[in-house]
Parts: sequence; structure tokens; C-alpha cells
Amino acid sequence: MSLPRDVLVQVDAWLAAHREEGLIGLRAFLALPSVSALSAHAGDVRRTADYLADRLRAAGLDGVALLDTAGPPAVYGEWLHAPGRPTALVYGHYDVQPADPEALWTSPPFSAVERGGRLYARGASDDKGQVWMHLLVAEAVLRAGGGLPVNLKFLIEGEEEVGSLHLPPLVEAERRRLAADVVVISDSAFYAPGVPSVACGLRGLAALEVHVQGPARDLHSGDYGGAVQNPLHALAALVAGLHTADGRVAVPGFYEDVRTLTAQERQVLARLRGDEAAHLREVGLAEGFGEPGYTALERSTVRPTVEVNGMWGGFTGEGGKTIVPAEAHAKLTCRLVPDQDPERVLDRVEADLRRRCLPGVRLRIDRSGGHPATVVPLDSPYLHAASRALRQAFSAEPVLTRMGGSIGVVPAFGRALGAPVVLMGFGLPDDRIHSPDESLDLGQYDRGQRALAAYWLELGEMGG
Amino acid sequence: MSLPRDVLVQVDAWLAAHREEGLIGLRAFLALPSVSALSAHAGDVRRTADYLADRLRAAGLDGVALLDTAGPPAVYGEWLHAPGRPTALVYGHYDVQPADPEALWTSPPFSAVERGGRLYARGASDDKGQVWMHLLVAEAVLRAGGGLPVNLKFLIEGEEEVGSLHLPPLVEAERRRLAADVVVISDSAFYAPGVPSVACGLRGLAALEVHVQGPARDLHSGDYGGAVQNPLHALAALVAGLHTADGRVAVPGFYEDVRTLTAQERQVLARLRGDEAAHLREVGLAEGFGEPGYTALERSTVRPTVEVNGMWGGFTGEGGKTIVPAEAHAKLTCRLVPDQDPERVLDRVEADLRRRCLPGVRLRIDRSGGHPATVVPLDSPYLHAASRALRQAFSAEPVLTRMGGSIGVVPAFGRALGAPVVLMGFGLPDDRIHSPDESLDLGQYDRGQRALAAYWLELGEMGG
Repeated sequence: MSLPRDVLVQVDAWLAAHREEGLIGLRAFLALPSVSALSAHAGDVRRTADYLADRLRAAGLDGVALLDTAGPPAVYGEWLHAPGRPTALVYGHYDVQPADPEALWTSPPFSAVERGGRLYARGASDDKGQVWMHLLVAEAVLRAGGGLPVNLKFLIEGEEEVGSLHLPPLVEAERRRLAADVVVISDSAFYAPGVPSVACGLRGLAALEVHVQGPARDLHSGDYGGAVQNPLHALAALVAGLHTADGRVAVPGFYEDVRTLTAQERQVLARLRGDEAAHLREVGLAEGFGEPGYTALERSTVRPTVEVNGMWGGFTGEGGKTIVPAEAHAKLTCRLVPDQDPERVLDRVEADLRRRCLPGVRLRIDRSGGHPATVVPLDSPYLHAASRALRQAFSAEPVLTRMGGSIGVVPAFGRALGAPVVLMGFGLPDDRIHSPDESLDLGQYDRGQRALAAYWLELGEMGG
Repeated sequence: MSLPRDVLVQVDAWLAAHREEGLIGLRAFLALPSVSALSAHAGDVRRTADYLADRLRAAGLDGVALLDTAGPPAVYGEWLHAPGRPTALVYGHYDVQPADPEALWTSPPFSAVERGGRLYARGASDDKGQVWMHLLVAEAVLRAGGGLPVNLKFLIEGEEEVGSLHLPPLVEAERRRLAADVVVISDSAFYAPGVPSVACGLRGLAALEVHVQGPARDLHSGDYGGAVQNPLHALAALVAGLHTADGRVAVPGFYEDVRTLTAQERQVLARLRGDEAAHLREVGLAEGFGEPGYTALERSTVRPTVEVNGMWGGFTGEGGKTIVPAEAHAKLTCRLVPDQDPERVLDRVEADLRRRCLPGVRLRIDRSGGHPATVVPLDSPYLHAASRALRQAFSAEPVLTRMGGSIGVVPAFGRALGAPVVLMGFGLPDDRIHSPDESLDLGQYDRGQRALAAYWLELGEMGG
């Protein structure tokens, strides 16, 4: 079952020979509008799962099945004929973000089109294209290499874009079937073009909604203004008080459980010297802002946050309406870092809000839970193997990164499987995921497949 | 042309005989959705003006015309056949507040329905219903009394609910046509049920919108959260800083020009002893809140305010969306008292906001102007005549009040016509103006018409 290094040449040749066929299959995958956020697309989501299951079977995987959840099914497949070798679980998602506003797309979001070395479609980079790369590499190594040098499992879910609500219980329930030595995820991007990246950490997330209730109905501000508490004033005071003016989170105890970065972890980030000003200009900003004493990269990857994602109350239409509104609302999320516990963080935020709420209004807080941050130990052999595979495929020195975002199910992999996670993604920063004109660079697509084949080889050499 | 006191009996009889016909006309008036704040209703606003002009003609008024402005037209009509008698200008408005949220109405806002002695519709009390009372009384006195004991002019405008922007220039330009000894306005409510009220003061108004611009598009809070200023955080800090925690306006210099109340003015308010707790319970509140050192009535009538009427930004739909929003917005109005100047107040609020805005966002402020407060001298004979007419029609002792609300054009009447204003309104505190289920009490509607007929008689006896 071992894969001699020269077999990589044969795998490359197989991938090259079948490239057009592979792209046709990917185009068909991208043509299915598997938008998990919109119930109107529930049938499309299901059809996408069926399509993927068929293709995994055709690629040579065994035990292909749809694992039902209360939401969309997860697609499972395996190839377990490498006894004594490590087992890798490939996790990804076949659902996509909504395509709206569709008018802003250059070509239709669900008709993949190639332009200038890129494939344009919703899901091209996030995450159907990257799932497809894994599928093609498994098939190539099976066909051209006569077998895989590792045991491989696929778990491709259908509700990542809406928070993976039902996946952690599935992972718990299926912990035997999913048992693995490492979880490999390709659902991220290079730190910069030409800079292969492996992420060794993800932030966690905790969410709550704040509802301030004042009078039973909107009041005329001429009759009542000045004599009753305005829920928007009370909410603004609550939100404003979450941060100090210089950008620290002001919630008492918020930073208490934050694990101090090791010197090595600081080094990992220090090596990533980007042009911060250019990065901000790209999104229309003249300057950054955040917690004093940290770089922009640290602020957005290894420091925790409290962020208001939305806020509303009163009259928001055209013109004016002189009211004291009945209600005011805000949606808050906290990005968490090790060792913050989501419930403990929510306890502290809630206590702070309740303590500071002004008189004359009632406060309701709806907590929707969350999940902790993840870090992979920097000495993990799975990380080092990923670096070697990337170096070989991209002829460039890979960097270790920390991701500021969150992948909801990752903590469940640690909890239920005890497996470390390797985040080896092949997107690029300008793929415009979640935006109109999402695309995947086809150079990344081709070289990424070579990197994945090399990675299975590296893992095969670790075990056995 | 004089109207002997026994003519009042005939006028009453005429009103009673034509009551159903009058209500049909009012229902048709209320069915026209003349929402001045929404440009989609511009046609409806115009149709409402046409309807009202037709009805004024039918009531027997001369010189009926639409007076064009850069906004909706004002409807004019006159009856000037009482030489040597005083001239009264009746001012009101035919436009209404938006009806949203329509789902909270028991019956549709633009289909007037009678329930429990009240007529429910947007504009029933504010101000179409009260304009209609004037129209019916003029017709009744003309028909049943053989003429009016005063010279009467009507000026009914179509943009009061959006600040009467174009009316003051119209009043200036038409100062000859509009010349009057007194301006009579029925666009207010009794202080309490059974307590006829004449207001001797109005607060002024000054309005602005605050726009906070952050990144060029909504950003993924995983990628950017913590490293860029969140426009909602910045806006919340701006709004929160407008007040001290105990309810004073914190804008530097805000109270500087406020005229001290005279002992007599304080007495007027001290006489109005209501059940403040019951008043708050009616609108679902357990406690009031406001500037320390003042009663609830003083806070809402003779003290100035800064009020946020609406605020919005980011994701406000169902579920969650982890973004740093691109923008955040707030609509603010200040209620003014003598001798605050609207532009000076806006200067101060704007300067305060600009001084306090956090880094990392851009601030845009749209000022929409305003108008100062008004007070009527407490010894005005027109006030006393109003008291006598109300006492006679409602068999109860009237009170003098100060209104917390604002009527945009009133300062222009003083400036251009030199005429005092008598605010004799027939709403009740629970009419829910500006809210769902606005209504007009039909007892007030009937007795109010008697009071207006009696008032013309009182004025006729003053002159001539």
C-alpha cells in the first residue's frame, strides 16, 4: 500500500490526463444551487448531497452514505485498506452562501465560467471547489497509485454556511465511524498569493441578542420626549460601554481566561509581514482600529472580540418620524481565543449588560451559545507534514497562520475524536467568497491537488 | 352678520341632522393615504389636497385654491363677509404619519372603522379629523346661522408631519392673503379626558441624521473583527454620549439659551396635577426617566431634549450573520424651548458629535433645520375667549397647558402675520397619534364642533 515517491509522477500524469473531465464534474457540482440559508433551496441541497455521494462512489470510495441530521445530510465515504497507516478524515461542506445580489455577478452564479485562469461561480472557492480537489486526488491516487498510502474518510456537510448546528451531535453519535488520527480541512485561503499556508488555530464564537423594551408602543416624542427612557438611548449606552474608547473590551473579566501566547506562537504571527495599509485600502479604510498593544494581525486572529453585527430600533425609513421607540435590538458575537469558554464569556457579557442597563426600560438577553477556539500544537507532525507537501507542490516556503474566523464543528472533532485539525486551504485572499463574482484560481486548483497527493504520501510515511 | 346665542341651537341642530353625512365625508378623507414622509404617496397627498379643496368649496367657502409650494400644496379657502369683525385663520394639516407597522393595527389604517365610540384610522385625531370639524362647523354656521360672525380663512397644509419645510416661505409670500387677528389651530389634545385645554406654548424642533461610514462593504467579522472600527460601536458611543447617565443632555452649551420660566408659567403647569404613574402605566411603563430637578410634565413640555427616533446598521434579519457592518445610521430630533435657536442647537450637537467620533470611521451629518418654540402671552383675550367657548361646550373648567410637541409653521405666523396662536385641540391623550390604532373619540368630535361654533361667536362679540 505504500506510495513510492515516483508514483507522484504517475498521479500527476493521471490528473493532467483527466483534467477536463474533472472540471466538467466540478461545473456540474457548482451548477447545483445548494444555498443552505434559503429554505426554497432545500431540494437543491439534497440533490447536491446525492450528486456528491455518486461521485465519491465513482471515485472508488467504499461505504458511501448520506448521514441524516435534523438539517441537510452529511455525505460520508471511506477507503480503509491501509492497515497500520494513519487515518485522515477530510471535512468540508457542499452548501454555499446565498448568491444575492445576483445583479452584481459578471456571469450567473450557478453557471461556472472560466475567465483569466479562474473559475467563477458561487462555491468555487468556498468550499465545493476545494472538496472537489480532495475527491479528484483520492481517485487519482487510487487509480494511478494502485491504492492510497493512508486510510481516508470523507465527511462533507451541508449546513456550514448556516452554523453547522446539527453536525456536532452527528460527530458525537458517529464517533466510531469517524475515528481518525487527523482531520484535514481545505476551507481556507493562502495568507497571500504565492505563500502556501497552514493554519494552526481558529477563533471560537459566542453569540447573543440584546432586546431593550421601553413603552408598550412607539410614543410621540412631543408628548413623552424627555420624560421617559428612550430604548435606543439605553441600548446605545449598553453597546458603547462594551469597549473602552481605545478599543479594549470593557466587560469585567473578559480577558481573564485568555491564554498567553507562547513565544513560538508570537513568532508564527511575526513572520507574516503583510502590507497592512494596502489590506485596509482594499476594503475602503484609511486606518485600522483595535486593542492597543497588538498588531492588526494579532487583533484579528489571536485576540478575542465583542462585535455588534446588527442593531436596530425606531423609525428607519425615509424622512422623519418623531417618536420615542418602543424597542431597540442588537445582535452580538464574540470571537474567542484559547482558553475562553463560550458560556463563561456569555455569562460575563450578560452580567455586564444587566449591571449597566439604565432605568426605565426592561432588558431581555437571548443567548445562542457557541464553541471554543482551537489551536494545534506547533510541534504536531501533521502540521510539519503539511508544510513539506505544500513546499513541494508550490515550490515556496509555507507559513503557519492563525485564522480569525471559526468553523463550528472543529471543536467537536477534538472532543469526540481527539484528533488534531490541519487547515490546509487553497483559496486566495481575492477569491471574493461570500460576495458576487466568487472564483477559484485554477493554478491553485492544479497545484493544490499535487499538494494533497504529496500530503497523503507524507502521512503514509509517518505511520506503517 | 352677528350670530345671536340662540343661533347656536340651530347650528347644533344642523350638525346633528348632517352628522352621518359628515362622517361619510370624513371617512373618505381618512381613506386617502396622505403620508407625506413617503415619496411613493406623493400622488395620494395631492389627491387629498384636491378632495379637501372640493369639500371646502362645497361648504360655502370662497377663493378656494391650492397654494403651490416646492412640496405638497397648501389648501386655502376664505369667507370674508363680516366687515369690522376679527379675522381668524384656521391652520391644520391634511398629511399623516406613516402607518407602519401595519400588522399592529386592529383594522386597516386607511379604512376608518367605528368601534366603541371611537373612529379608528391614521389621521383620525392628527389632524384630518380636527380639520374636518372646522370644515363642518364653518358650513353649519354659514347654512344654519345665515353667515359667520367673523371673517374666516383656512390654511391646511400637506407636510406638517415632515416638518413643514416649505410652509414658512409660503406664509411670508402670502402674508396679505393670510392676514389675520388670530391663528386657530386644532391639532392637539385635552390634557386629560373631561379637561378642556388651551395650549399657550409649543416646543420647537431641530432635526439631523447621523451617518457613520466604515469599510466599503460589510466585512467578515472572522477576518476583520478586532482590527477595524465597527461603525455600530462608533455610532453607539456617539448616541450614548448625548446624555448623562441621569438623563441630562450632555452636549456642551445645550441649555445655555434656555429662558427661565416666569412664576406665572410655573403656576400654569403646577395646576395640572395628573396621576403620573397611571399615565405611564397606560403606555406600559413602570417608571419615568428624565432630567433631574423637573417634574415629568415639565420635562415633556418646557424642557429641551435630544431624542434618537431611529437607529440602524448591519444585519437585522432572522438568525445571525457575522459581519462588521459597512455603515450605521441614526435619526435625531431635539425639542426646543424659548429662547433656543434651532441652527445654534444643531451647531452645538454637530460639534459635539464631530469632537467625540471615534477613529477609524467617517462621519456625515445631514441637518434638516427646524423651528423655534412658541409661547402665547397668558393675558391674550383670544386665549380667554377660547376658555369660555370650551367651558360652555364641555361643561367643565378649561385649563391652560404647554404642549411638548411642535407645529413647524407656528413661528412663521408670528413673524409674518404678527398674529397670536390659539391651540384649541380636541384629541384625547389616548388617541395613539403616530402609533398603530390611532383614533378619535366621537364625543370629542361632536362637542368640539359645538365649542368651535361658540368660539366664533365669542370672537364676533370681541370685534364689531
